[in-house]
Amino acid sequence: MPTQSHSFTFRVRYAETDQMGTFYNARALEWFEVGRSELSRAVGMPYTEWESKGVFLPLIEAYVRYQGRAQYDDLLEMTLWGETVGHTRMRFPVSIVHADSRKPVCKGHTVHALVNKEGRPMRIPDWIRAIYPTADEEAR
Amino acid sequence: MPTQSHSFTFRVRYAETDQMGTFYNARALEWFEVGRSELSRAVGMPYTEWESKGVFLPLIEAYVRYQGRAQYDDLLEMTLWGETVGHTRMRFPVSIVHADSRKPVCKGHTVHALVNKEGRPMRIPDWIRAIYPTADEEAR
Amino acid sequence: MPTQSHSFTFRVRYAETDQMGTFYNARALEWFEVGRSELSRAVGMPYTEWESKGVFLPLIEAYVRYQGRAQYDDLLEMTLWGETVGHTRMRFPVSIVHADSRKPVCKGHTVHALVNKEGRPMRIPDWIRAIYPTADEEAR
Amino acid sequence: MPTQSHSFTFRVRYAETDQMGTFYNARALEWFEVGRSELSRAVGMPYTEWESKGVFLPLIEAYVRYQGRAQYDDLLEMTLWGETVGHTRMRFPVSIVHADSRKPVCKGHTVHALVNKEGRPMRIPDWIRAIYPTADEEAR
Repeated sequence: MPTQSHSFTFRVRYAETDQMGTFYNARALEWFEVGRSELSRAVGMPYTEWESKGVFLPLIEAYVRYQGRAQYDDLLEMTLWGETVGHTRMRFPVSIVHADSRKPVCKGHTVHALVNKEGRPMRIPDWIRAIYPTADEEAR
Repeated sequence: MPTQSHSFTFRVRYAETDQMGTFYNARALEWFEVGRSELSRAVGMPYTEWESKGVFLPLIEAYVRYQGRAQYDDLLEMTLWGETVGHTRMRFPVSIVHADSRKPVCKGHTVHALVNKEGRPMRIPDWIRAIYPTADEEAR
Repeated sequence: MPTQSHSFTFRVRYAETDQMGTFYNARALEWFEVGRSELSRAVGMPYTEWESKGVFLPLIEAYVRYQGRAQYDDLLEMTLWGETVGHTRMRFPVSIVHADSRKPVCKGHTVHALVNKEGRPMRIPDWIRAIYPTADEEAR
Repeated sequence: MPTQSHSFTFRVRYAETDQMGTFYNARALEWFEVGRSELSRAVGMPYTEWESKGVFLPLIEAYVRYQGRAQYDDLLEMTLWGETVGHTRMRFPVSIVHADSRKPVCKGHTVHALVNKEGRPMRIPDWIRAIYPTADEEAR
């Protein structure tokens, strides 16, 4: 069950289209990242503060399932949440739909390591555990 | 066993870096796509000819495993191949390493539907089967 | 004097940073394009409607003056307007500042031809003249 | 007269197209940057060495004149050179044509400040003057 999920709308940029007339596939990962920024702001701890506390969140895994087209200027709605996985990882499941029709556009998730400024792996600090729920391993 | 795999080198563009000093995660999917272009040219049927034959190859799935950093101007080597999956899909497994040290950068795959100009699903034509092997379902 | 100028705020995406820690230079042109989308919506004739009326607006010229840094998640404010130039061109002057400090980030403009679906040049239709003022040639 | 100009070919990526079927305008600035990387390597002093010597080259100005279309997988040829401007700036004029037909795609230039690691302006070092000619102010 997602807790603290966050939703917001955004529009497809012209730059994000390709010659097939839909959004270019790699842009989905840019959108997922915009989602993590908005989620972290919504739960009161923007990612800029993570970085100023010396916690970085490099991707170790990304998965996208493309479900439907989205054209220039279409209004999309993204819903995502974050969860801690074990002692050293975080996971952000995401889904994007057309805001009006609710037709699916894409869904997926990213998995992240936590590293310090020197790039060394670190355990998840308590202030992150206080914000994000622990992944229900069964459910995955 | 990959058949007809193709390898080539390329350099990380400055545009592809981010403020962590490594390549921005979404760029991996742009690289995978460059790989599909180079592979299709190497096997004698460039993707531009696919499109002029009315065969399009939208993504339905993308997976990336990030394994190591890569900085501006680093020389990387991509290896990939293509395979048909069932009657209507193709799959392109990819891996990228540092050309000199062979240190891994990322690996993953994309899965594609075959659609015609109207966006309707189509069966894999014989001329594609003649070029790309059938996925060994066991091996996956 | 700008007439019908439009302002709005937006945040720098992580994807838009580079290893110098500021926004990557080419992204300014993506922002300018987002600006044209927002401006056209604000004046009641979104660019999607231009395209459905068969009017396309390819760039023929872009100029950017980089004035200051902008980091991930910074809140920026863009101000732009549009004007017709002679019988066949449009021009969109843009400036971007930090929303709080008003420190300049970049400014510039794009110049566009008007073409039909076949890519052939066309004269500026009356419904565009009714919305966008004529460039004051003296002032340029 | 350009001295030490450098030319090389490259292909348009699918990611670089937009729904008008030509390259997306901002990508021209990414190409110009690829050009500066290739030029600096060709003259024996790759930009990575500039940065390791503590010399950074942020853009202060970019200009692009769009002259023609370029589609996915088209083979383009870029020609560019670099020149010093006064005591503190560099300028890189660029032109891009279709490799076979020589039809123009776009041309332009970027102007750069020289700054040190702290972002403070610096004078052009002698080792740069030894490589790049001084701009002929008359010719501009």
